[in-house]
Amino acid sequence: MSSVSVVGLGAMGSALADALLAAGHTTTVWNRTPAKAEPLVERGALRAATVTDAATAGEVVVFCVLGYADVHALVDTAGAALSGRVVVNLTNGSPQEARELAVKVRALGADYLDGGIMAVPPMIGSPQALVLYSGSTASFEAHREVLQVFGRAVYLGDDPGQAPLHDLALLTGMYGMFAGFLQSAALVRSAGADVEGFTTTLLVPWLAAMAGGLPQMAAEAAEGAYPAAGSNLAMQAAAVDTLAGLGRAQGVSTELLAPLFALMRRRVEDGHGEEGLAGLVELLHRG
Amino acid sequence: MSSVSVVGLGAMGSALADALLAAGHTTTVWNRTPAKAEPLVERGALRAATVTDAATAGEVVVFCVLGYADVHALVDTAGAALSGRVVVNLTNGSPQEARELAVKVRALGADYLDGGIMAVPPMIGSPQALVLYSGSTASFEAHREVLQVFGRAVYLGDDPGQAPLHDLALLTGMYGMFAGFLQSAALVRSAGADVEGFTTTLLVPWLAAMAGGLPQMAAEAAEGAYPAAGSNLAMQAAAVDTLAGLGRAQGVSTELLAPLFALMRRRVEDGHGEEGLAGLVELLHRG
Ligand SMILES: NC(=O)c1ccc[n+]([C@@H]2O[C@H](COP(=O)([O-])OP(=O)(O)OC[C@H]3O[C@@H](n4cnc5c(N)ncnc54)[C@H](OP(=O)(O)O)[C@@H]3O)[C@@H](O)[C@H]2O)c1
Ligand SMILES: NC(=O)c1ccc[n+]([C@@H]2O[C@H](COP(=O)([O-])OP(=O)(O)OC[C@H]3O[C@@H](n4cnc5c(N)ncnc54)[C@H](OP(=O)(O)O)[C@@H]3O)[C@@H](O)[C@H]2O)c1
Repeated sequence: MSSVSVVGLGAMGSALADALLAAGHTTTVWNRTPAKAEPLVERGALRAATVTDAATAGEVVVFCVLGYADVHALVDTAGAALSGRVVVNLTNGSPQEARELAVKVRALGADYLDGGIMAVPPMIGSPQALVLYSGSTASFEAHREVLQVFGRAVYLGDDPGQAPLHDLALLTGMYGMFAGFLQSAALVRSAGADVEGFTTTLLVPWLAAMAGGLPQMAAEAAEGAYPAAGSNLAMQAAAVDTLAGLGRAQGVSTELLAPLFALMRRRVEDGHGEEGLAGLVELLHRG
Repeated sequence: MSSVSVVGLGAMGSALADALLAAGHTTTVWNRTPAKAEPLVERGALRAATVTDAATAGEVVVFCVLGYADVHALVDTAGAALSGRVVVNLTNGSPQEARELAVKVRALGADYLDGGIMAVPPMIGSPQALVLYSGSTASFEAHREVLQVFGRAVYLGDDPGQAPLHDLALLTGMYGMFAGFLQSAALVRSAGADVEGFTTTLLVPWLAAMAGGLPQMAAEAAEGAYPAAGSNLAMQAAAVDTLAGLGRAQGVSTELLAPLFALMRRRVEDGHGEEGLAGLVELLHRG
């Protein structure tokens, strides 16, 4: 069993501390607003009076606050008390922010691991939760048992920026899927059809089937070559016009997909009508 | 076994004809550019010299060409030869186009079924393919065996517009997911990370997990009430700013998700920051 401190007891930090307690680790907690520590102390957590005390108490010090500015302020306060510790930062931010924080933490004589939590608080501690880590390999190996308490732990290498990069990329993918759902729900609802039945019996299985094509599209993006596997862009662009027309006919804005459709048309005009959809990645970023 | 004609032998029409041949149906084929019939004739299809001959040859006449304008022209050409036939139109279009074509076809003394193919050509004939049908109930029942040759056949009622409506809504959902994928692939690739590994080991399972939340979002859209289940819009809007910043830092356009993010901000400004994401549907269409 390890001694672990959790700094920041919002919805997520509290869930992390609870999972550590449930796994039997010695858990010290600190929060700016002290009242949020109460329920955890009742369940067996040790209360740190200051963030410096929290740093002293844990071999592993987990930070889970709102943003990087908050983590910087707390690390500055704890200062030398972090020496010899492993800082695990689970606060959301950019790859660059993670790299900069790692430099500051290492200068204090501590090890740095960055983490991206792919879960909502109620999922923490269950196998459905995924946490991406990057940064110190030695610390990930040494504390794997602690890190796996939160959910499935995936290590992405020693560049601290990898966890936030992959975290943000996964969120991006999710928001695209949600945008598609919102657009389809608006179309179905505006036609007076059954949105719930549509979603459960048609949309969810359909998305699962179509997600099966993503690895092939990823391979094409990696190669920079985009053969059309049966569905060429020119044909797809025609279907897209029908979709926009349906929106107009039913009084539904199709703004959520308008940029995708514009890129499809541009790619066809650029002479790539016989290629596949994945080639649009070239219009977002030159590989 | 039935006699079936396939009009239009592009990527999809050829796959449909092949599935019919494999199932042992008498299959007559016609295509504007005759060369595309050759491989099918070699595999046992009968060649029709004209679209009128094709109409005469089949109890069921399947149309699968680029757009409705093309189907109208072909139906006008075949004219009275379609009398007594069942026209199954698998060309993509809008609900309104389907309803108008149904009127024309019925006036010729033929029955009309509209179909939306939810599959790419290589999937045709496999259980992974789904085809949505609407229109004549009697013809769907009478020719169910033929229609199931292409894939799982789902009947959505006698309004011919239902198949295209649900087809277009499913395509919408798919394009949202693809837009999210393209955006995430551009981010991962621009950082020099492994797009294929990211997609296969992280993105696809993550999307499957997050798709589990869509039925709940659909129920909220049906109700018009949007409680936040753990992740409120205000918190999500903050993560979205980090994402836009990452795009700028890596020289990746984030235009594909910009309209979603704009709607998220607008909804927060409208005082719905404590609600969930599904409420955005109200900004697309007033329920
Ligand atoms: N909730 C999720 O679904 C989820 C999922 C994945 C990742 N995350 C990430 O996890 C982190 C925490 O999220 P959350 O859901 O726990 O948020 P939250 O419930 O809003 O809690 C925010 C926490 O940050 C603390 N804090 C804010 N500013 C501070 C400062 N200047 N100094 C010290 N503490 C400060 C707050 O302390 P007070 O109590 O004193 O205000 C509180 O403990 C965020 O980076 C979020 O992006 C959340
Ligand atoms: N491929 C898919 O993944 C997919 C999936 C679902 C639905 N669909 C739908 O299936 C339909 C056909 O798609 P596809 O992939 O087979 O397209 P395609 O490979 O581009 O073939 C288009 C077909 O339409 C014919 N055509 C076009 N204009 C015509 C005209 N004025 N008169 C007669 N024939 C004409 C073409 O004949 P020529 O050979 O003479 O040019 C060709 O046979 C479209 O509505 C599409 O939306 C396709």
